[in-house]
Amino acid sequence: MTDHEETTVTDLGATIWLTGLPSAGKTTIARALAATLRDGGHRVEVLDGDEIREFLSAGLGFSREDRHTNVQRIGFVAELLASNGVKVLVPVIAPYADSREAVRKRHEQNGTRYLEVHVATPVEVCSARDVKGLYAKQAAGEISGLTGVDDPYEVPTTPDLRIETDGRTVQESAAALHALLAERELASDALVAAGPQSTSIGAPLRREGGQASGRSTA
Amino acid sequence: MTDHEETTVTDLGATIWLTGLPSAGKTTIARALAATLRDGGHRVEVLDGDEIREFLSAGLGFSREDRHTNVQRIGFVAELLASNGVKVLVPVIAPYADSREAVRKRHEQNGTRYLEVHVATPVEVCSARDVKGLYAKQAAGEISGLTGVDDPYEVPTTPDLRIETDGRTVQESAAALHALLAERELASDALVAAGPQSTSIGAPLRREGGQASGRSTA
Repeated sequence: MTDHEETTVTDLGATIWLTGLPSAGKTTIARALAATLRDGGHRVEVLDGDEIREFLSAGLGFSREDRHTNVQRIGFVAELLASNGVKVLVPVIAPYADSREAVRKRHEQNGTRYLEVHVATPVEVCSARDVKGLYAKQAAGEISGLTGVDDPYEVPTTPDLRIETDGRTVQESAAALHALLAERELASDALVAAGPQSTSIGAPLRREGGQASGRSTA
Repeated sequence: MTDHEETTVTDLGATIWLTGLPSAGKTTIARALAATLRDGGHRVEVLDGDEIREFLSAGLGFSREDRHTNVQRIGFVAELLASNGVKVLVPVIAPYADSREAVRKRHEQNGTRYLEVHVATPVEVCSARDVKGLYAKQAAGEISGLTGVDDPYEVPTTPDLRIETDGRTVQESAAALHALLAERELASDALVAAGPQSTSIGAPLRREGGQASGRSTA
């Protein structure tokens, strides 16, 4: 709090939406970034898809319409927080481009910063990770409507950042995202240096394991 | 931002829930207090019942269960904001004691400040004000389920503050609420002096007019 410049950076709110397939690594990256930002004095909130669905969208299912409504509700809450100086990380699938666009527009109308980040993990890698066992259940015919398998996922065409998580550590992915925030003057450059290869997005390499979020986030 | 003490007061978040009948004056008092707090450098959000219902509770009605769900959703969002340093004013009817208690408990569990304020305007006065014409419509048989008339309102037994709005100006009611915040060290004392009779709650006197919120807030 000694430097006016620093105070400004930490006080600037923004929504950073991490969209991607189930098990892409959205929540894990969000939590890693959140820890770094908190260490840097930022107010941070991770709007976890599962928790927020329980509170805000009980009764909604996974139809296109219900997913849209869920995403709009999360977007509404994120904008409220971001407009009050919070860095809001939203690791939520948000499979439809028009839903994401509506959230972006709401932010723009209120003059609130919004960044779209595509956590671009190939479906085969997500399926191998299968943190919540959803891909296995879908394959076994126990569930249907799994985003990216038998339910649509519209790949973002012009995200603010696309992170290829395959072949990178969580810390590398989080550092790439932190570098974006620094570039947009939402975080200080200093911390970025700590993350290896923080500004380059590597080519995808097959890698097993790694925690990630699941289906029920949008 | 020159005084550490002041910074602390403005950075402390809290939810201040204004419960009361339709047309009791909840929203008007909340907006007046919000203006004062913003002038004092606080982050402030007014969670207006109508707007938040549109976004978070579309599809919910006014049954006991739906009102409860709506109040829990608003409470969830308020706690998120308050835990991030925002003064959250919630002018929402919240007619059921157990709904209000659940919101309070959620705040306590998260270590987030919560104040319950009963905007205690007699139903006859609310009915005379009838900002949204709901009392007239109910009397004409056009609507039913109006809180305090043909739908329950459980009067808070131990609110942090009870404001008798009848016979007081909006500024006086807002000042009484500001005095509560100062007493709980959520605002500085200095501003309180600006409000006349800011700490005394006068006896009810019949008075017409005054803006207030309507039915559809919980």
